[in-house]
Amino acid sequence: MAVVLPFDPVAEVSAAPSIEGIVTLVRADMERVNALILSRTGSDVTMIPEVAQHLISSGGKRLRPMLTLATADLCGYQGEGDVKLAASVEFMHTATLLHDDVVDDSEMRRGKLAARMLWGNEASVLVGDFLLGQAFRMMIEVGNLTALDILSTAAVVIAEGEVAQLAAAKNTATSEDDYLAVIRGKTAELFAAACEVGPVLAGRPKLEQAACRSYGMNLGIAFQLIDDALDYGGSGADLGKNVGDDFREGKITLPIVLAFRRGDEEERAFWRRCLERGEIAEGDLERAIALLAGHKTIADTVERARHYGAMAKDALGIFPAGPTRSALIDVVDFCVSRAH
Amino acid sequence: MAVVLPFDPVAEVSAAPSIEGIVTLVRADMERVNALILSRTGSDVTMIPEVAQHLISSGGKRLRPMLTLATADLCGYQGEGDVKLAASVEFMHTATLLHDDVVDDSEMRRGKLAARMLWGNEASVLVGDFLLGQAFRMMIEVGNLTALDILSTAAVVIAEGEVAQLAAAKNTATSEDDYLAVIRGKTAELFAAACEVGPVLAGRPKLEQAACRSYGMNLGIAFQLIDDALDYGGSGADLGKNVGDDFREGKITLPIVLAFRRGDEEERAFWRRCLERGEIAEGDLERAIALLAGHKTIADTVERARHYGAMAKDALGIFPAGPTRSALIDVVDFCVSRAH
Repeated sequence: MAVVLPFDPVAEVSAAPSIEGIVTLVRADMERVNALILSRTGSDVTMIPEVAQHLISSGGKRLRPMLTLATADLCGYQGEGDVKLAASVEFMHTATLLHDDVVDDSEMRRGKLAARMLWGNEASVLVGDFLLGQAFRMMIEVGNLTALDILSTAAVVIAEGEVAQLAAAKNTATSEDDYLAVIRGKTAELFAAACEVGPVLAGRPKLEQAACRSYGMNLGIAFQLIDDALDYGGSGADLGKNVGDDFREGKITLPIVLAFRRGDEEERAFWRRCLERGEIAEGDLERAIALLAGHKTIADTVERARHYGAMAKDALGIFPAGPTRSALIDVVDFCVSRAH
Repeated sequence: MAVVLPFDPVAEVSAAPSIEGIVTLVRADMERVNALILSRTGSDVTMIPEVAQHLISSGGKRLRPMLTLATADLCGYQGEGDVKLAASVEFMHTATLLHDDVVDDSEMRRGKLAARMLWGNEASVLVGDFLLGQAFRMMIEVGNLTALDILSTAAVVIAEGEVAQLAAAKNTATSEDDYLAVIRGKTAELFAAACEVGPVLAGRPKLEQAACRSYGMNLGIAFQLIDDALDYGGSGADLGKNVGDDFREGKITLPIVLAFRRGDEEERAFWRRCLERGEIAEGDLERAIALLAGHKTIADTVERARHYGAMAKDALGIFPAGPTRSALIDVVDFCVSRAH
């Protein structure tokens, strides 16, 4: 006698989204990526592996290299190049983090002291350069000129996005469009490139390259929006950094952009004093969080993230259903749900 | 009636060596390199061209890109790729300078305020990253995988050399070999790569690639040795930086390595106090310069430079005599003679 299992849509929807699907899917290849990361941070100059390993071993999710492996898999790629490109993507990301910490004067990164606090800004700048160079070497070993073009263009666009963020820093006149342009560059471009090289390696048509790129770009935007919401909403322990870092640094993120527009003149004077002039007193962070909550700008930032997440998921619609596509869709839900 | 011009060997030898030969030889191509440099520093993010142009327009000799053009010419290269690779080499160099100024806390560069003094360390780090990315994009456009391998490896080796210098900073136990390993990485590797890609583009055999690489490597070592000698010997106006910068930063260069070994215990205590502990008082720079002079370590640093310069010139012996080879040899004499 067959057992009839009742269909429970509520249980299915309420299960916490996770990245277990993609983790399982790419596990074997990620072991090779991790071995490559370890070997390519090696150097006779002992400070290099020390600094690099401090950050690399600090428990990032390695989402970006997993995306390269998964999109290559989605496109039926059979070769070895995806492992090297995935490691290159992670090195580009790590180099960016090392340089960002110097640019932002950050003290913490992933719940540990930032490398620059232990080895100084000098080492963070130079080891970042080393990792960026190693990233290019690995890409070149793969020898695919289109993939090289995509990833080197990403390196340029990321730097442009970071400089644009610097130029917009402390400027409360920043619009939502300005903000979007910054995060497309500084964050989403690497997600897009990481996903685009998968179909490129597999020799798939432009349509599929564009679909994977769109998935990565929109996922990256959603990811950064949630990150910016979490900066005012999560707990220090969960985030691996302190709540209110963006506030203290005068970073104009979407929760602020919206609150500035929705607030009255007194509130705008508050934002200008804290973010433009950097005059932050006891209790100001609490007031900022209360204003963001009052104007529902954290909730709406999450809503905006959902929008980009939906675009990311729809972009994959041209690929056949299957475990890889499902795993990539779960990644979007996981990223958006981090805000809760 | 024919006019007999007397042969005057003294006049020929005593003529100040110059880089006029190479400048004339590559003038047409350098105009294209300069146009490319200008166009590839462009960005909608206006801070990028501002920072990049500040340094690029500050009158460096652009020796490295000229070397790429000249070695390509020496090897009979007829294509267009050398212009892009030359611009890439200059971008790699400029990126390194921007990052170096941050690492060294430099206030001056080429007689102007360092970019970081005008736009901050953040901009110097990020615009450096932008230029490095643009360098890779240009190389990739050329599409020669061997040249890509050489230049990306150089990027890694340069960063390693810079970190090695950082690790050796303020350490008076640094040996001449340690010092040489550092300058091979941080300076000579880019000269070597700039020269090696010429024959690679021209599809010349390994022997000629190795010869051009050796020329560049030894020229680069000589160049840095002279630079380090000049730091204690030139005038601020000539150098575009302040005399004694290396001393104040605790940099252990060859004049110091030799003076430490040739000095007595009292002198070593002086070097340790100034360079290791950074306790520099009024008159200490003058004493340092007097000690270096007393032990003839500036003169001997120049002698060592002559040795590497001779190796560089001999490396070109496998190429036929002609204006290009002569121009490259003049570059060596010019670099070594800067010390006077």
